[in-house]
Amino acid sequence: MKAIVITVQVEAIAPDLSDNTADLDRLQQALARKLQDGRSLSVPLRCMTSVARAFRDAGFRGYALLNNLETGWAVVAFSAEEPRVIAAMALDLGTTHLEATLVNLRNGKTLASANLENAQIVYGADILSRIHHATARRRQQKPVTSDFQDPGLDELQDTIIGSINGLACELAKKAGMAAHDIRALSVSGNTTMTHLFLGVDPYTLCREPYIPLFNRAQGIEASQLHLRISPVAPLFIMPSIGSYFGGDLIAGILASGMAHSEKTRMLIDVGTNAEVVLGNSEWLIACAGAAGPALEGGVARMGMRAGPGAIEYVAIDPENYGIDFRTIGGVAPIGLCGSGLIDLVAAMYLTRIIDIRGKFRDPAAEQDPMRKEFMNRHLLSRNGEICFVLVFADDGSGEDDVVLEQIDLDAMIRSKAAMYAILRTLINQVGLDFSDLDEITVAGAFGRHINPQSAITLGMLPDLPLSVYRPIGNSSLAGAEQVLLDEDARQECERIVSNITYLELNVNQEFMIRFSGARFIPHTDPALFPSVPLFDFKSG
Amino acid sequence: MKAIVITVQVEAIAPDLSDNTADLDRLQQALARKLQDGRSLSVPLRCMTSVARAFRDAGFRGYALLNNLETGWAVVAFSAEEPRVIAAMALDLGTTHLEATLVNLRNGKTLASANLENAQIVYGADILSRIHHATARRRQQKPVTSDFQDPGLDELQDTIIGSINGLACELAKKAGMAAHDIRALSVSGNTTMTHLFLGVDPYTLCREPYIPLFNRAQGIEASQLHLRISPVAPLFIMPSIGSYFGGDLIAGILASGMAHSEKTRMLIDVGTNAEVVLGNSEWLIACAGAAGPALEGGVARMGMRAGPGAIEYVAIDPENYGIDFRTIGGVAPIGLCGSGLIDLVAAMYLTRIIDIRGKFRDPAAEQDPMRKEFMNRHLLSRNGEICFVLVFADDGSGEDDVVLEQIDLDAMIRSKAAMYAILRTLINQVGLDFSDLDEITVAGAFGRHINPQSAITLGMLPDLPLSVYRPIGNSSLAGAEQVLLDEDARQECERIVSNITYLELNVNQEFMIRFSGARFIPHTDPALFPSVPLFDFKSG
Repeated sequence: MKAIVITVQVEAIAPDLSDNTADLDRLQQALARKLQDGRSLSVPLRCMTSVARAFRDAGFRGYALLNNLETGWAVVAFSAEEPRVIAAMALDLGTTHLEATLVNLRNGKTLASANLENAQIVYGADILSRIHHATARRRQQKPVTSDFQDPGLDELQDTIIGSINGLACELAKKAGMAAHDIRALSVSGNTTMTHLFLGVDPYTLCREPYIPLFNRAQGIEASQLHLRISPVAPLFIMPSIGSYFGGDLIAGILASGMAHSEKTRMLIDVGTNAEVVLGNSEWLIACAGAAGPALEGGVARMGMRAGPGAIEYVAIDPENYGIDFRTIGGVAPIGLCGSGLIDLVAAMYLTRIIDIRGKFRDPAAEQDPMRKEFMNRHLLSRNGEICFVLVFADDGSGEDDVVLEQIDLDAMIRSKAAMYAILRTLINQVGLDFSDLDEITVAGAFGRHINPQSAITLGMLPDLPLSVYRPIGNSSLAGAEQVLLDEDARQECERIVSNITYLELNVNQEFMIRFSGARFIPHTDPALFPSVPLFDFKSG
Repeated sequence: MKAIVITVQVEAIAPDLSDNTADLDRLQQALARKLQDGRSLSVPLRCMTSVARAFRDAGFRGYALLNNLETGWAVVAFSAEEPRVIAAMALDLGTTHLEATLVNLRNGKTLASANLENAQIVYGADILSRIHHATARRRQQKPVTSDFQDPGLDELQDTIIGSINGLACELAKKAGMAAHDIRALSVSGNTTMTHLFLGVDPYTLCREPYIPLFNRAQGIEASQLHLRISPVAPLFIMPSIGSYFGGDLIAGILASGMAHSEKTRMLIDVGTNAEVVLGNSEWLIACAGAAGPALEGGVARMGMRAGPGAIEYVAIDPENYGIDFRTIGGVAPIGLCGSGLIDLVAAMYLTRIIDIRGKFRDPAAEQDPMRKEFMNRHLLSRNGEICFVLVFADDGSGEDDVVLEQIDLDAMIRSKAAMYAILRTLINQVGLDFSDLDEITVAGAFGRHINPQSAITLGMLPDLPLSVYRPIGNSSLAGAEQVLLDEDARQECERIVSNITYLELNVNQEFMIRFSGARFIPHTDPALFPSVPLFDFKSG
């Protein structure tokens, strides 16, 4: 387990007239004797004077700080005393949100955490509008040379670098050090974000046949990107596989441990897209599809990202129709995040407020008096449309009612159908069944808050024992931390990339058929969901 | 024979939905198939967009331009058509003078040549005064960090970078291209000049035990030094061996071919120091000593560097005492360069104007009337000192007489004694005799102009057949050209560095004894110079 930056203790004999070896040669020879690994050893130009002087001042003995690069070792500092902390920054470079930790490479401990909205949002909320902004000149067929690139791309790059510098300063301050004491940076982001971060043309990413300009970027040091961390800090950029399968997911696979597992597992990461990976230590297959928006809070009028005031849990008592809910941060409710939405729709199905198509039922046709009364109270007409009022503004202390409209429900049904169709298509592709799965790992905020039982009720996730589902939080960030700490993890990223088969769903006929079949609650084929109760809505 | 930058022709299939390999991955895969050498292949951050775009625009086929680095291949450009020229700059980075050529790596041909005084001269004429200027803060014991180095060092570095940029622009203009079309740079300089060029602290270079901060500097690209050639141009810095044995001499050894020769050879390079190497393909031994000043024109009042107006050849007819001389460029004489000085002193010995100690003889004691008349005409008292007037101002068209004073003669004798003592000490060190030498290669302006017969007459060079002596011109520059063109030459530099034994003369007792014995013309032991006539000056 070799970190991306390590210290090596060395001791050399002081020079004299009979031994006029140059200071840096002396240091490199002492290091080579100690490391015994035959790898190349160099001192970056920028560090030559400072390293040699520190080595000399320390009496030719002490601790060398070495970058562990793909091309060999680079000596970047020297100190007489052993450093207690070697700080490195792990960054989850999200389209809307950046999340970062500062880890101590000496012991793997987290020194500080911080997060920030992605300031690129002023140039476009989603990936497509940012690519549009970054390629204005290119789209006008104007020449763009290496010396003069699209100003929109420069803006997006400068913005994200500024945000990352802000995060680095915040992390460093929290840990009681300076930003330039941060010795390495790992970056885990989707393919577009990684292109924009490096200032690389994203033009072909969103145009058929959706080709990234690069998947791997190696040998980059912080100074090249004007990052305010140590100028010689090495960058580890999580490799990607394609336009729609980025380094963030490679990090997720790494963090989930599935690529080490003998038993077959599935990893689900829901962001703007639903990204799903299936496999084990022998093989990996992955796909991505647009199942996300309704689940990430991007579609429903009252939808929101998982944050303070978001209803993350909802239950409706099937006996007395009492509504129970919980918001993130325990504050007044202002909307529904993905997990709250899933809970709500599942509860509405179980209490027969909606039918198997996800449509609001007519209170007038309802026979059960208690349910009829509940439906009359909560299903109200607003602006000529029927909607379900979950929380009345005068009940809670929120400023508006929290409501769900039919249009939101429809989007939700499409998302859950897409999700199930993705999972089903993928597992079918390898001739397995869901029951063959050892574990279904659910990543991200979605995984942290979701109640798998509700998702099963809706027919979004397969009907398996709840113990099969394991949330792992921000796996993109966790993977980024692992690569800083462990050389094997860095190499495993390469193995993952070369092992993975990517299944393109945009042109997949089976997916389209499965998508249609999944647009009911729980499914057109209820036998797939034995644990979910079935209702005969015709009889009320 | 692989140049430092090469082109490789590739052809790849265009991407489609079933093959979404990233553009740069596609290029790298095609290159790896073509190269078949298992070396790492990367695209520098700065070139990612331009290379990918050119590859795409060329229809995924054409010619990739690759830097051949120690750590692997770096793809820096792509073009549909095969480039006819790949220009690279070779630089001899001298203390007083820079000499450079632009070579076409495609065929080894020279595209242009240029030279320039080293502008650092305003901060000090010699190495010691420049080190002094570069270390003012350091000498005051003030802290100097990697972020803040000695301003004198910055000045010296900025000055030399400015001079090199000027040379690069001149070369490029002569060759009909832009400076940033220069794709690589090799630098051959002494250890101090190399330290100053890279902005590396030279403090310990001139202080016992004379330790360089570095001997090797690898992985540097032009942008790091603000050179105006292609920012991704790789630099090859000739490695050095010690403070007084620099990369310029390694280049000389390389250019001389002695490290390939089965037979033992000697290489003599006279600059500020006389640097001498002895050896063959099996072993190399080297030393350096202060034999230079008088020979390089730094001491004699009328001494000058080999340039237009310098008398490079002198003969005095022993029958009629007619003086024959030739100036560089055929213009009016303004001084004497090293070879002219050697010729003159040898001629003065052969015509018995000076004695075996190198002292002007007294015309009054002279018996031969013709010689007496010549001595009376040329040995004149100026400012109370006797001097020899070689050219009278009213004879030639020079503005002043060209004269030689006793003090110049004394310096000359010391220099020639030092040179012979160095050669003798070195050959004795390995138990050989001069007659065992296959060749004595004489480098630099000294080698180009010197008449070995005169040097033998003085007892400066060993008394061997003239065919043994071979001038090779600016071997520092020739070596710098070789490393650009040939990977084997780059590797041979490493072999030379690791094979060479350096003999320190500053503490060598044998050298001091031999130096004393050599302070006569030709030597205290005339048997060492059988071809040189001996005169009994006592009898006139």
